[in-house]
Amino acid sequence: MKTRITELLGIKYPIVQGGMMWVGTADLAAAVSNAGGLGIVTALTFPTPEELVKEIARCRDMTDKPFGVNVTILPAITPPPYEEYVQAIIESGVGVVETAGRNPEPFMPAFKAAGIKVIHKCTSVRHALKAEAIGCDAVSVDGFECAGHPGEDDVTNLVLIPAVAAKLSVPILASGGIANGYQMAAAFALGADGINMGTRFFATQEAPVHENVKQAMVDADERQTSLMLRTLNNTVRVYRNKISEEVLAIEARDGKTDFAEIQPLVAGTSGRTKVLDDGDVNGGIWTAGMVIGLINDIPSCDELLKRIIAEAKEAAETRVGVFLS
Amino acid sequence: MKTRITELLGIKYPIVQGGMMWVGTADLAAAVSNAGGLGIVTALTFPTPEELVKEIARCRDMTDKPFGVNVTILPAITPPPYEEYVQAIIESGVGVVETAGRNPEPFMPAFKAAGIKVIHKCTSVRHALKAEAIGCDAVSVDGFECAGHPGEDDVTNLVLIPAVAAKLSVPILASGGIANGYQMAAAFALGADGINMGTRFFATQEAPVHENVKQAMVDADERQTSLMLRTLNNTVRVYRNKISEEVLAIEARDGKTDFAEIQPLVAGTSGRTKVLDDGDVNGGIWTAGMVIGLINDIPSCDELLKRIIAEAKEAAETRVGVFLS
Repeated sequence: MKTRITELLGIKYPIVQGGMMWVGTADLAAAVSNAGGLGIVTALTFPTPEELVKEIARCRDMTDKPFGVNVTILPAITPPPYEEYVQAIIESGVGVVETAGRNPEPFMPAFKAAGIKVIHKCTSVRHALKAEAIGCDAVSVDGFECAGHPGEDDVTNLVLIPAVAAKLSVPILASGGIANGYQMAAAFALGADGINMGTRFFATQEAPVHENVKQAMVDADERQTSLMLRTLNNTVRVYRNKISEEVLAIEARDGKTDFAEIQPLVAGTSGRTKVLDDGDVNGGIWTAGMVIGLINDIPSCDELLKRIIAEAKEAAETRVGVFLS
Repeated sequence: MKTRITELLGIKYPIVQGGMMWVGTADLAAAVSNAGGLGIVTALTFPTPEELVKEIARCRDMTDKPFGVNVTILPAITPPPYEEYVQAIIESGVGVVETAGRNPEPFMPAFKAAGIKVIHKCTSVRHALKAEAIGCDAVSVDGFECAGHPGEDDVTNLVLIPAVAAKLSVPILASGGIANGYQMAAAFALGADGINMGTRFFATQEAPVHENVKQAMVDADERQTSLMLRTLNNTVRVYRNKISEEVLAIEARDGKTDFAEIQPLVAGTSGRTKVLDDGDVNGGIWTAGMVIGLINDIPSCDELLKRIIAEAKEAAETRVGVFLS
């Protein structure tokens, strides 16, 4: 199959594995790329630009297919050396970069000069328009359903994808809330040229995550996520567990964030060790999309992508095919 | 075209106009039914069962096609005489009833004995399963996007429709967030057998609503709705205006509902006169779905349904058709 996304990225299927902190290593990225999608190594998972360069080389050893690197730009008191990461990515010869968080405009000249295709993650029509205006080659539209940061507008992909598609010229990846091929077909009906999945790839054989975490995603229903930190205007969708509930209780108590109370809960429990390595799914905060309710197994990436394409084809033939009769 | 919904309801297109207080009169319902969908008269818009019977007769004068009646069962200190309304509906010979709000189980034996098809509106998988278990003929699944009461789970239709479709045997109407045929095709890809629209029908020539209100919907973008009364566990999605913002400010101030403050704002401004009749769109609370961001004109119902079916066909041929090549 051919779409604007397969053409732009030089891949077989228009399926991108979005950047994920701690999970977006060469192992997962290479597996997705070998399966015909676009795998993405997440830059800030590696503590220095040098270690990122090594991971990119490791990914290249595992696949001869295209893959990309995610750079998420967030406000921080002591921000990572973004320029050094960007320079390392450019020198490593990667062809695709996924940017997320703040406006990637400062880095665009360097990416464009290196011939890198830039996909920017957006949570609103206005940000998608801005991304197009600064020269991004595609946008990845994150609806309210997504894991991590959905923004503060709470517009769902059923509405957001058509709203963006009505105004943009560059290709669109539907991101958030998608785990199967029926949903992929739906995203295409809404105007997307491809899909981006994070949470679904979290629960694959190749994801570098403890088996308990994958099993928790299989066991969860669609109500097992929460939005925390809304009172900071920094909303984040996470797996609902004891700690996320404690944070929400603090936020609900007086309608604002008590930093002193919340900070230790969040800072002391996030990161990878306790949840992702030890498999203590209630031992910390971890992001998960609403779509965990539709995840029922832990396939290999190859198995997953083949199934998704088969489901999308079935949807086109039968479910949506009813409009052709 | 033929789907389980067109067969069940005896209609041309699998498009239902959901019940809407004040708006679901015979004028709108007959227009939708004449256009090939299923129009729905909203029972409680009429102050007595006798007046509802007259409205049903008026609707029958305007169309020889099937139409239905909505009965929304809400908790109230002095509830309307539901049994009398139900009896009036049955005696009037209507073939389809849409129930919403509380579990319609008490009224099911009477409906079934009269051969009436019952569609129940649900906002969750568990309520959909319950509706099927008590004998409803179809469910209308209201996602987070919908106008009015989306429930408290905040699960969007991109996830909720597939989750319900995986567990139910009866036909499914996707409800909430849908205004065009691309979205209708998406709903079918997700597992729906038809769609239910409210907000989109609000902005049609035949809706008995002041022109200013329709124009406000055309002018609004997808961020122009708010969820209020969450602190009462009675969340309602409304058009965002000065009064809804005041209610939200009161709720946010101390994380709970100050009844004494909110009640006069809501009670004093809702109902039809100020907004729907006088066209003062900021003069009261009125419900609107997130999909107002995708409404750009005020067509007749006939024009709208023809266009939606053409768009869905186009989506099937081109957008989703890419999976067939």
